[in-house]
Amino acid sequence: MCNIHPLFNEFPHMLHGGDYNPDQWKATPEIWDEDMRLARLSGCNCFSVGIFSWAELEPEEGVFNFAFLDTIIDKIYKNGGRVFLATPSGARPRWLAQKYPEVLRVNDMGIRNMYGSRQNHCYTSPIYREKVRIINEKLSERYGKHPAVLMWHLSNEYRGECHCPLCQAAFRDWLKARYNGDLDALNHAYWTAFWSHQYTDWSQVEPPSARGDFKTVPGLVLDWKRFVTEQTTDFIRAEAAAVRKHSDLPVTTNLMTTFDEINYAVVKDALDIISWDAYPYWHSPEGNAIEASRTAFNHDWFRAMKPGQPFLLMESTPQAANWHVVSKLKRPGMHKLSCMQAIAHGSDSAMYFQWRKGRGGLEKFHGAVVDHVGHEHTRSFKEIAETGALLSKLDSVVGTGVDAQVALVYDIENRWALDTLSGMVTGRKGYTDECQMHYHALWKQGINVDVIDMHADYSKYKMVIAPMLYMAPQSVVDAIERYTANGGIFVGTYTTGTVNETDLCYLGGRPAGVLKDVFGLWAEELDVLYPEDKNEIDLSGKRYPLVTYFDVAHPSSAEVLATVTDDYYAGNGAIFKNKYGKGSAYYIAFRSNQDFYNDFYTALTDEFAIIRALPSLPEGVSAHTRNGGFLFIENYNSEAVEVALDGAYINMETGETVNEACTLGAYGIAVLKKE
Amino acid sequence: MCNIHPLFNEFPHMLHGGDYNPDQWKATPEIWDEDMRLARLSGCNCFSVGIFSWAELEPEEGVFNFAFLDTIIDKIYKNGGRVFLATPSGARPRWLAQKYPEVLRVNDMGIRNMYGSRQNHCYTSPIYREKVRIINEKLSERYGKHPAVLMWHLSNEYRGECHCPLCQAAFRDWLKARYNGDLDALNHAYWTAFWSHQYTDWSQVEPPSARGDFKTVPGLVLDWKRFVTEQTTDFIRAEAAAVRKHSDLPVTTNLMTTFDEINYAVVKDALDIISWDAYPYWHSPEGNAIEASRTAFNHDWFRAMKPGQPFLLMESTPQAANWHVVSKLKRPGMHKLSCMQAIAHGSDSAMYFQWRKGRGGLEKFHGAVVDHVGHEHTRSFKEIAETGALLSKLDSVVGTGVDAQVALVYDIENRWALDTLSGMVTGRKGYTDECQMHYHALWKQGINVDVIDMHADYSKYKMVIAPMLYMAPQSVVDAIERYTANGGIFVGTYTTGTVNETDLCYLGGRPAGVLKDVFGLWAEELDVLYPEDKNEIDLSGKRYPLVTYFDVAHPSSAEVLATVTDDYYAGNGAIFKNKYGKGSAYYIAFRSNQDFYNDFYTALTDEFAIIRALPSLPEGVSAHTRNGGFLFIENYNSEAVEVALDGAYINMETGETVNEACTLGAYGIAVLKKE
Amino acid sequence: MCNIHPLFNEFPHMLHGGDYNPDQWKATPEIWDEDMRLARLSGCNCFSVGIFSWAELEPEEGVFNFAFLDTIIDKIYKNGGRVFLATPSGARPRWLAQKYPEVLRVNDMGIRNMYGSRQNHCYTSPIYREKVRIINEKLSERYGKHPAVLMWHLSNEYRGECHCPLCQAAFRDWLKARYNGDLDALNHAYWTAFWSHQYTDWSQVEPPSARGDFKTVPGLVLDWKRFVTEQTTDFIRAEAAAVRKHSDLPVTTNLMTTFDEINYAVVKDALDIISWDAYPYWHSPEGNAIEASRTAFNHDWFRAMKPGQPFLLMESTPQAANWHVVSKLKRPGMHKLSCMQAIAHGSDSAMYFQWRKGRGGLEKFHGAVVDHVGHEHTRSFKEIAETGALLSKLDSVVGTGVDAQVALVYDIENRWALDTLSGMVTGRKGYTDECQMHYHALWKQGINVDVIDMHADYSKYKMVIAPMLYMAPQSVVDAIERYTANGGIFVGTYTTGTVNETDLCYLGGRPAGVLKDVFGLWAEELDVLYPEDKNEIDLSGKRYPLVTYFDVAHPSSAEVLATVTDDYYAGNGAIFKNKYGKGSAYYIAFRSNQDFYNDFYTALTDEFAIIRALPSLPEGVSAHTRNGGFLFIENYNSEAVEVALDGAYINMETGETVNEACTLGAYGIAVLKKE
Repeated sequence: MCNIHPLFNEFPHMLHGGDYNPDQWKATPEIWDEDMRLARLSGCNCFSVGIFSWAELEPEEGVFNFAFLDTIIDKIYKNGGRVFLATPSGARPRWLAQKYPEVLRVNDMGIRNMYGSRQNHCYTSPIYREKVRIINEKLSERYGKHPAVLMWHLSNEYRGECHCPLCQAAFRDWLKARYNGDLDALNHAYWTAFWSHQYTDWSQVEPPSARGDFKTVPGLVLDWKRFVTEQTTDFIRAEAAAVRKHSDLPVTTNLMTTFDEINYAVVKDALDIISWDAYPYWHSPEGNAIEASRTAFNHDWFRAMKPGQPFLLMESTPQAANWHVVSKLKRPGMHKLSCMQAIAHGSDSAMYFQWRKGRGGLEKFHGAVVDHVGHEHTRSFKEIAETGALLSKLDSVVGTGVDAQVALVYDIENRWALDTLSGMVTGRKGYTDECQMHYHALWKQGINVDVIDMHADYSKYKMVIAPMLYMAPQSVVDAIERYTANGGIFVGTYTTGTVNETDLCYLGGRPAGVLKDVFGLWAEELDVLYPEDKNEIDLSGKRYPLVTYFDVAHPSSAEVLATVTDDYYAGNGAIFKNKYGKGSAYYIAFRSNQDFYNDFYTALTDEFAIIRALPSLPEGVSAHTRNGGFLFIENYNSEAVEVALDGAYINMETGETVNEACTLGAYGIAVLKKE
Repeated sequence: MCNIHPLFNEFPHMLHGGDYNPDQWKATPEIWDEDMRLARLSGCNCFSVGIFSWAELEPEEGVFNFAFLDTIIDKIYKNGGRVFLATPSGARPRWLAQKYPEVLRVNDMGIRNMYGSRQNHCYTSPIYREKVRIINEKLSERYGKHPAVLMWHLSNEYRGECHCPLCQAAFRDWLKARYNGDLDALNHAYWTAFWSHQYTDWSQVEPPSARGDFKTVPGLVLDWKRFVTEQTTDFIRAEAAAVRKHSDLPVTTNLMTTFDEINYAVVKDALDIISWDAYPYWHSPEGNAIEASRTAFNHDWFRAMKPGQPFLLMESTPQAANWHVVSKLKRPGMHKLSCMQAIAHGSDSAMYFQWRKGRGGLEKFHGAVVDHVGHEHTRSFKEIAETGALLSKLDSVVGTGVDAQVALVYDIENRWALDTLSGMVTGRKGYTDECQMHYHALWKQGINVDVIDMHADYSKYKMVIAPMLYMAPQSVVDAIERYTANGGIFVGTYTTGTVNETDLCYLGGRPAGVLKDVFGLWAEELDVLYPEDKNEIDLSGKRYPLVTYFDVAHPSSAEVLATVTDDYYAGNGAIFKNKYGKGSAYYIAFRSNQDFYNDFYTALTDEFAIIRALPSLPEGVSAHTRNGGFLFIENYNSEAVEVALDGAYINMETGETVNEACTLGAYGIAVLKKE
Repeated sequence: MCNIHPLFNEFPHMLHGGDYNPDQWKATPEIWDEDMRLARLSGCNCFSVGIFSWAELEPEEGVFNFAFLDTIIDKIYKNGGRVFLATPSGARPRWLAQKYPEVLRVNDMGIRNMYGSRQNHCYTSPIYREKVRIINEKLSERYGKHPAVLMWHLSNEYRGECHCPLCQAAFRDWLKARYNGDLDALNHAYWTAFWSHQYTDWSQVEPPSARGDFKTVPGLVLDWKRFVTEQTTDFIRAEAAAVRKHSDLPVTTNLMTTFDEINYAVVKDALDIISWDAYPYWHSPEGNAIEASRTAFNHDWFRAMKPGQPFLLMESTPQAANWHVVSKLKRPGMHKLSCMQAIAHGSDSAMYFQWRKGRGGLEKFHGAVVDHVGHEHTRSFKEIAETGALLSKLDSVVGTGVDAQVALVYDIENRWALDTLSGMVTGRKGYTDECQMHYHALWKQGINVDVIDMHADYSKYKMVIAPMLYMAPQSVVDAIERYTANGGIFVGTYTTGTVNETDLCYLGGRPAGVLKDVFGLWAEELDVLYPEDKNEIDLSGKRYPLVTYFDVAHPSSAEVLATVTDDYYAGNGAIFKNKYGKGSAYYIAFRSNQDFYNDFYTALTDEFAIIRALPSLPEGVSAHTRNGGFLFIENYNSEAVEVALDGAYINMETGETVNEACTLGAYGIAVLKKE
């Protein structure tokens, strides 16, 4: 009934553990044995090893020292554990930067960085690539077949950009290839006749910079960001090739959350397994339900990058992240709940940065399994061990997938385009917020969702929601048309289909081309409101605020579901529905608050009978399913709740059978299996 | 009865149109003909052409291509329109910057800019000047006598400064000339004995910089700003000389609003016609009346730069400016109203940036006559056409002047001095705000005002208001004395006459020298308050808030009109009136809120029988007159109002006669002519 | 009964006067004589001369001109006054920077500054040191025995850092010495295995920089700050050696307030006399009592740097400081009060920046004795003269010390460490605020306090309070243990004893090592709250807010004095008291508001019978004593108050005897002597 694809056939268990830096404790190796004892106590079975160990592994150029790695990997294996073996490229040794200054990045002022920080090296530099290749191949040769090693953990949180001459030259070559050597095509794509910016030679191309053109040439900004993503991906591929020289193990890298500048929709293809680092702000004044749905959004985004396959939660914190604006501790229960949330969304791991707090450095106060006190008698350690105990009972969940009838399009190129855009409002346009408001409405109902990029395949979904799809290349315009014509339910909003892939506005009115038929309307002008402005929409007699954006649209074939109550467009349509082919398209012409999205999507998913994990959920509670009959109910309230069930389940933690209803304590989690 | 001086005798019509960039549409020249059709529909008769066309006109060094300009200018002329022909110096071609890097600016960190943006070139660079001269002379030769061309539009929105070695050398030469080669004079003027800053050689002079002396030598900052203004003006003169080589047409450049760093009181003398770009924030939470009076302030400022002569509204937006913090659309009616406001204040044009929205580039979402949809069936296009229709009925207004009995001194050198000043409060001192509060009180009453710089001729005004005239060179001190002695009504405020032209404090007590006699008082000490502090002044029993500043002044001959109610200076005079010679001087020793200025100036203008456009105006309504009996009544309310008239008028839009009262719709405008 | 140590035996009077820059008035030397007349009228007897006079004294390299100094010093002496003679190193002449660019600082971007500002020179530069040596020795030779000169005033407000190659090399040498040439020790101290940052050669060491490692290596940041402090101190010692070449006079430099980046606990040893520049924000919305206690905190901090010896108030303003965010004037009375506050805390001077307002330059609006008006008929001048008259009656106070039973540890290295720390909250941790809340509670009670650094001798105090002593090197841990064991009362708070001197976390649990026994508890985890979070502590039935920080601590031997009311640690101890040896230790596990500290310290000082200046004080009033029976009562209220006395006193200003009670006017001060 359900396909099972464990990521690691030879170790088909939920992975529990984290980043482990024993090289920081070389002076007191007795701690290494204590680590093994504590690993057993906490139920930790997996460690990411070797991240940032380059200076230890290659203390001087060409001199290698694998002694500590040999020892540690063996200790872990003997302790029943497994290893994700990292390449050390996340931070370069000082000798490397000193001898080859070209490996350090140059900023957009043309000033070269000094040694420091991490990911402060040029992904283009041939010397850096060569040095990485050498150490990676050494690791591959030595550990590529070690039974303890499950996977290659490439570098750490790739990010950033470099403006050095090598990168600038590579960018020019990349553009030449993208535009087939046709400078006129580039000039058209960037609309360079504006401000007399026509290129007459490829050598004139420079990356965006605060001392040249910054956001003034949007097409250039978009291409530069694409180049940075592709150059980073190319570097990742080079790292992967090196570790695979003597090894067949899969590769991953730990991705980050929605704020990152790299487009993971491109990076994902260079990886075998998707893993990411989750650091939500629990217990903030915004409330845990909002933060839980944002985290769920991320889980669903990373999971959907490799359809049908579990992902890994590679990093998280058992207590607080030191770099949070406020390092508030997780309240009792929240740790297990947040780990299980990842599992509920399709992760086969719950791992931490970090195993043991270092004594010094930037992250010495980052949460960890083992605190500076060194022993297991802390509140947090006990909760970690309890989490480990539960995970150890979930072998049957390992490898199961998550099926979703609904997809939400969250597209990094659109975020780039909107944030680069001079218009609407100064600065950020609220793209991610808007997407997450739509998502939250589905999360509240316990609906499984895939979060996808605009180029993904829509055909497998019953409903596709694409908020603020401002940029829609012709291929995406066509895909939406095809999807809807073939029976899909497509939900778009104001600004949909305004520009193509180089930020050139479509002529002939919004939304672009055939989308006017799909939505059955023409959007004449976009109004933007001040925070102080008040207006509402009327949807079947209920009022909701209209905030920030309103698209004055005129229906051709569309039906008007809601209207505006005030201002010069009072009475104008605010929500439109259009039958198109075998499907339907909705156009939400405004932004509102969470209440609106909750009500709108409850009605919409009712109408189209979208599957929910449970028929009804209390406030602050969500539920998700994994294939095979696994149900996860998550209580983000600080009080206990009772949740009605739709049949009999076995509680996988207690082994008890639950019927009709299930009680969850404060920050409680229930992992159930359909009987 | 009324002198009429049309700017363009050969085309004595109100100008309507805008920036037109057909070179962006070279690939689809059918759009050029469509533009002509839409021009006729919208009543547009004037286009600024060639702005930012350098790369098109000179695609490589010394190779010129005027084909598109030839075509476009002819098309416009055949369509009945006229052209402002621009010099292309606002943005340089890439080949120019690539071949001659010296043309790019250097910032105050000593880092040279890369190619990018606009006005990013050095106004000192001989090479840049030479290249501009060549292209300008070519334009002059080819189009200088073309019947379609009305005027030269020099460059676009000159601004900014450069710290390159050439500019630094020019600055030193400029100083040597200003101080007659006398380094001791410079040392005295900058008070360099403070912090051991004495110059012993001219070569030691460097411009203000965050890595050297920034605001620490105020006299240097002022001279640097003067130099930048003069160097920019010199560049403008050079541009003008080149276009006049084969042409007698007048020159203008489009100036900007109050925020700009260039002192237009100097620039204006290099121009034949004043034009400016107006981008108010309509419909913001502050309210339209405030924004209307700020815009009116600007109109009156630019008009007064060339006494007796109309100015031009060169740019404005029919919908919203893409770079506004919030791009809120103009509500129905506001477009015509705002265009007519310019006419009311003495403009003979209402022009737009831009004729047609480009597909790409920074400003693709800036308001335009023709939207991306391409046709005329938009709300905005209809309002533009309606505006065009009204303008076409105003031929008799063309060339008429505006007479004002009141002048308000708004002086850029004072703004520089106050914003540079370390004292009072950190950062900006609110100079422009203060001036605009005084102005608003006059605007509410429908009083024509000239906004002038401190060196302007006061003698023609019945009343001169000079808020915060902190810097008053001896010549200005003398001018105030002379003006008042001869019967003028002079209104000053706290801080008046504190420093001379290099920011040296006058000795002997404030206000400077004879001004103590003019105002009949001595200002002992300036108190500055926190926003949380509360105090009031009592004026004939009515209370007004005292905020931010209070000058503790002691009357000699002055009469105390109002007193302070609280704090250690309770009972102290707050408003002083002094008879001096045949005139009167007022000293407002504090800052207050708008209510105070409204009441104060209503009483003052009543007392001195200052002429109002109409005896009484509703809230949110203003009225202005142009010579020849033209009356403009402007309703900035979102509701209709009835305005009482002082006699019979003909409504120039409808041809009807109006008596006693006139009703204006929401954002309505009435253009009347005395019968 | 009381030891008296006048700083200047040959001039045993309270010093009154200020910074005097006659070189700014060379062109009008008649002003110099007017200055002498005004000095007599204002009761000013002491002037700091020669600050920033280098360009005047050495107009070109090697050419010296002491004429103006000769004249001025003689004039002052003949007028009955004395001189603090400054070295001119605070700002270099332009010729020096022009000829030797190496003397200008380099910022952390690697960009060298231009000439400008002050203290913009490299303290490492051999050339700068040599030039300073030459001019200082000249001054020493010429004036070192002049009877008018009391002291050397070295430079002015030393501050800042330089990243030039010379400084970088010096930093490496300094580190080599500090770590005995042992790079492994450095690697351990900085925990460089984190992020692969191991040094393999000393040449790899670079200072912290935004383009390298900034706060990412906390140990490096701390050592860099130590180096900057020591390099500055070394420069000061070199200056001192030069002026002492022909002179035995004491040296000082004017230190600044708590915001400065230099650790004065090191600098103080290079000085004979401590002096500082006080610029409180009087009459701000926060209220004068708070600001008065902050200023008192500073006075007590600077006084305690040289135990048993008066300090000097070197600068203050009679009206307002021009660089204040809001330059609000001192209200009547406040000037005398604030001068006397300094005397009350142990100063033997009340001096001003500046004697006469300059006509130009950055500080022309800084408060001064003589305003631009030039005469003595101002409110402020009269208050200064009144202050001078009172000071002239206080000869018997000169040289008396201040005895304190309580010390408060305010430690700059801890402030550095906390502000560098990534954790708790982003940015500043509120260390100074926390210290000043504890201090204010003592100030309200009229308790004399010494503010000391963590390495100071605790043994002479009855009570030592060390808020947020996050960093406690082993020697400090031992000192606390010894102090408490020997009978001291030690008060610590959350975070005490977390790290050692290079920011390495102590292992084995907080507080470090034996401190767990001293406090009788173990602090398991530090929670950090949002501003919106609400929680309280219950102390004997009274509730106080718990804000920002809470340390979840478990008592071993400690007694719980207060508990938390809410959240998962409800019921947990919040204040702990532990008997240790002959003493007691208190642990305040949370931050609260001022009310809590007031109540807590009132009870604590009652319990331990700490001496107060008077038994009871009204709100907004404080009182302090100097040895010999001098009592200063200070009223920071804008209304008069009556203060109960504990016996009979003579009012030193009026000569009257006061008994039982003393009435003080608004901002009134009473200087009393026990009969």
